[in-house]
Amino acid sequence: MAQKPSIPKGTRDFAPQEVAKRNFIFTTIQTEFKKFGFQQIETPSFENLSTLMGKYGEEGDRLIFKILNSGDYLKKANQKAYSEKDSLQLTNSISEKALRYDLTVPFARYVVQHQNEINFPFKRYQIQPVWRADRPQKGRFREFYQCDADVVGSDSLWQEVEFVQLYDAVFSALKLEGVTIKINNRKILSGFAEVIGEHDKLIDFTVALDKLDKIGEEGVVTEMLSKGISDTAIEKIKPIFGLKGDFAEKITALKEILATSESGLKGIEELEFIQNAIAEMPLKTSNLDLDVTLARGLNYYTGAIFEIAAPEGVKMGSIGGGGRYDDLTSIFGLKNISGVGISFGLDRIYLVMEDLGLFPNSVEEDVKILFVNFGQKEALYAFKGLQKLREATISAEVFPDAAKMKKQMNYANKRNIPFVILAGDEEMKAGTYTLKNMKTGEQETLSISEIIAKLS
Amino acid sequence: MAQKPSIPKGTRDFAPQEVAKRNFIFTTIQTEFKKFGFQQIETPSFENLSTLMGKYGEEGDRLIFKILNSGDYLKKANQKAYSEKDSLQLTNSISEKALRYDLTVPFARYVVQHQNEINFPFKRYQIQPVWRADRPQKGRFREFYQCDADVVGSDSLWQEVEFVQLYDAVFSALKLEGVTIKINNRKILSGFAEVIGEHDKLIDFTVALDKLDKIGEEGVVTEMLSKGISDTAIEKIKPIFGLKGDFAEKITALKEILATSESGLKGIEELEFIQNAIAEMPLKTSNLDLDVTLARGLNYYTGAIFEIAAPEGVKMGSIGGGGRYDDLTSIFGLKNISGVGISFGLDRIYLVMEDLGLFPNSVEEDVKILFVNFGQKEALYAFKGLQKLREATISAEVFPDAAKMKKQMNYANKRNIPFVILAGDEEMKAGTYTLKNMKTGEQETLSISEIIAKLS
Repeated sequence: MAQKPSIPKGTRDFAPQEVAKRNFIFTTIQTEFKKFGFQQIETPSFENLSTLMGKYGEEGDRLIFKILNSGDYLKKANQKAYSEKDSLQLTNSISEKALRYDLTVPFARYVVQHQNEINFPFKRYQIQPVWRADRPQKGRFREFYQCDADVVGSDSLWQEVEFVQLYDAVFSALKLEGVTIKINNRKILSGFAEVIGEHDKLIDFTVALDKLDKIGEEGVVTEMLSKGISDTAIEKIKPIFGLKGDFAEKITALKEILATSESGLKGIEELEFIQNAIAEMPLKTSNLDLDVTLARGLNYYTGAIFEIAAPEGVKMGSIGGGGRYDDLTSIFGLKNISGVGISFGLDRIYLVMEDLGLFPNSVEEDVKILFVNFGQKEALYAFKGLQKLREATISAEVFPDAAKMKKQMNYANKRNIPFVILAGDEEMKAGTYTLKNMKTGEQETLSISEIIAKLS
Repeated sequence: MAQKPSIPKGTRDFAPQEVAKRNFIFTTIQTEFKKFGFQQIETPSFENLSTLMGKYGEEGDRLIFKILNSGDYLKKANQKAYSEKDSLQLTNSISEKALRYDLTVPFARYVVQHQNEINFPFKRYQIQPVWRADRPQKGRFREFYQCDADVVGSDSLWQEVEFVQLYDAVFSALKLEGVTIKINNRKILSGFAEVIGEHDKLIDFTVALDKLDKIGEEGVVTEMLSKGISDTAIEKIKPIFGLKGDFAEKITALKEILATSESGLKGIEELEFIQNAIAEMPLKTSNLDLDVTLARGLNYYTGAIFEIAAPEGVKMGSIGGGGRYDDLTSIFGLKNISGVGISFGLDRIYLVMEDLGLFPNSVEEDVKILFVNFGQKEALYAFKGLQKLREATISAEVFPDAAKMKKQMNYANKRNIPFVILAGDEEMKAGTYTLKNMKTGEQETLSISEIIAKLS
């Protein structure tokens, strides 16, 4: 094989420095999840094809990676599809398994399958890769991690409050300060459609409204008109385009706009509950804002809707989102299990942190000390010192070969190792090690315990 | 969907307690890897089919999970194979990608692809799932994690020494004491074949020898005879069946047996180097033993061969293994890169630890405190206390609903939460919280900072 090997498009190798940074994000999120009482589960990378198909719409079905059956898979192939060369129809008969497309459907499957072992309300988190046969482009991959926390089995609004706090806790711990936790409620969107008398156009209406940020009021109005929403209706709804002020002021305005909608008023009540609780327990570094244009996954959410915007000045789509869904597990036959959950957009959080220089320097540092190798006798002496360093949880290594000094120093420099230890005859006689600071060039001859004390 | 959903055979869901235990093993291994200067990389779950095919033998090729191409995949199907309904021949034309079968081939691919960015010698570790279309059976899964550490780019024997130390460090940190690190050397096996004049039967010879443990001397002899190894040859080799004593004694015996084989003597020299270094730096809890019957992956290893046996009395196959290979990356066109590596058998280590009761109790504990929910006002008061606990990194939660006391207590019990906090009117007036120990039933009324001090 003369050609340099490569990896499938849309996938990535992660080099040590990238893994270290990604792990920093994972670990930080995980620590907060645990403090909040969430428990980790893991599900298989592939599910039965039937578990996944039909859950993400037609487009989703196409983007699911299917796994070819093993052995003589054509034996059980659908004859009609085979003779007609119909790829779409043939798939089911030659593929029984498919790669996970998200963490939500496998979680719903998990809850239904293990309902008798689960202690409800069940607070679970899951950090695993998912796969989508999307056309790869900048920032969009065919394999990427999702990171979800959900609670199922209770409809208490305290959970929405907790998720706002959890977002704040995670972003504060990451030192990613000043994010905006935007919140809306599906019932408010229904309320809008109701008061303008266009309840059957709820989806068209919210899809258009969702674009206010991007295409402005005029654009939204044009789109609504094109979808058959009447002039009169649009006139009625205009006040929401210009909603201003803080959370409480927006609530006041909404109460007026939605005065005649029972659903709308319920939505306002839910938002007020969350807002009041957060006012009593102020967020550390994030802002909570009411955004009535927020609609993400409308068909799915039934109550609160969340979305996270990066700190002002950072150009980046949402870095997280979620909401309440009242009927997730019914697709697998278990009814009336209310759930609410959020997710973190890991790849985007990574980019934002890189952009703002938020990764601590300690993340980049791996090995702290390299012992220079001067030959067999000296190497053994080095290894004996090395052992004590490692016992003191200091990451260190001996260069494996007695290579030229320059080569060994180059290795240390390239790997950003901050200290090297030189130990030859003199040190061996005295039982000491000469520690050299690679930045300052400073050298000190010390005992191993002095070195440990110095570096700990 | 009336039927309860399920997962593909050979795959597993991991419940919170299982994930916690698995993470305990992962984290312990990872901590030692880091101390030893290994750096983590990650590669994609699927590779180009051509990267994997032909690397694991014919059987391996069959066991690789192939991913069906997206879209109208039959358009590019091999016409001849299609009309002949030849599954095997068709595969290449309808599948371009396949799931990772192990971590070694993707690592070799990584090293070749990124050779110009890598700082050699490259010490990498990787902990990721792999997939095999094996027939599932007890302890054998279609998705399982591998955990590998390798060094490439140096042939120093100090690395073999380090791997012995690394195994010892990991098993000692896991409190899995008394494992045996069995070591052999491919050159010794070649030496045996040489001295008995059956060098062309090296594979048959070692495959038979490898079974000494299971089928005994008589069985091995029978198998060797059946493979055409002569009586005279077997007579010559008989001393190795009964090799006894400690490492040094076995070495002495081997020197005699292999006196005429250059390769054999080289192997002995390498083993002695490792043995001498370890004698100078005694292992913490593991035993190092020379096992001349050890052959695993003979076609692959060129020097040291390692295998880990569980502590005596535990019935379990090897829980780890590895060795030196001189030419791993040449399959992708990069020659003369020597490597040595080891792996840990996670699923088996898990079973052994479960068996011996080695998981610390703290692994099972997740939430430390549950606040009982007595209603809105009380819940807000509880949440305020909760926030302080979490800031002190104590994992805690408020029951989301003001459900019946019994239900809330049941939840705490089932989840093994060791403390509950009860706070009603009296506590709210006094600014205190009543802490109940769920084991002893003991109750104390304390301030939040007193509770933090008590539990930290």
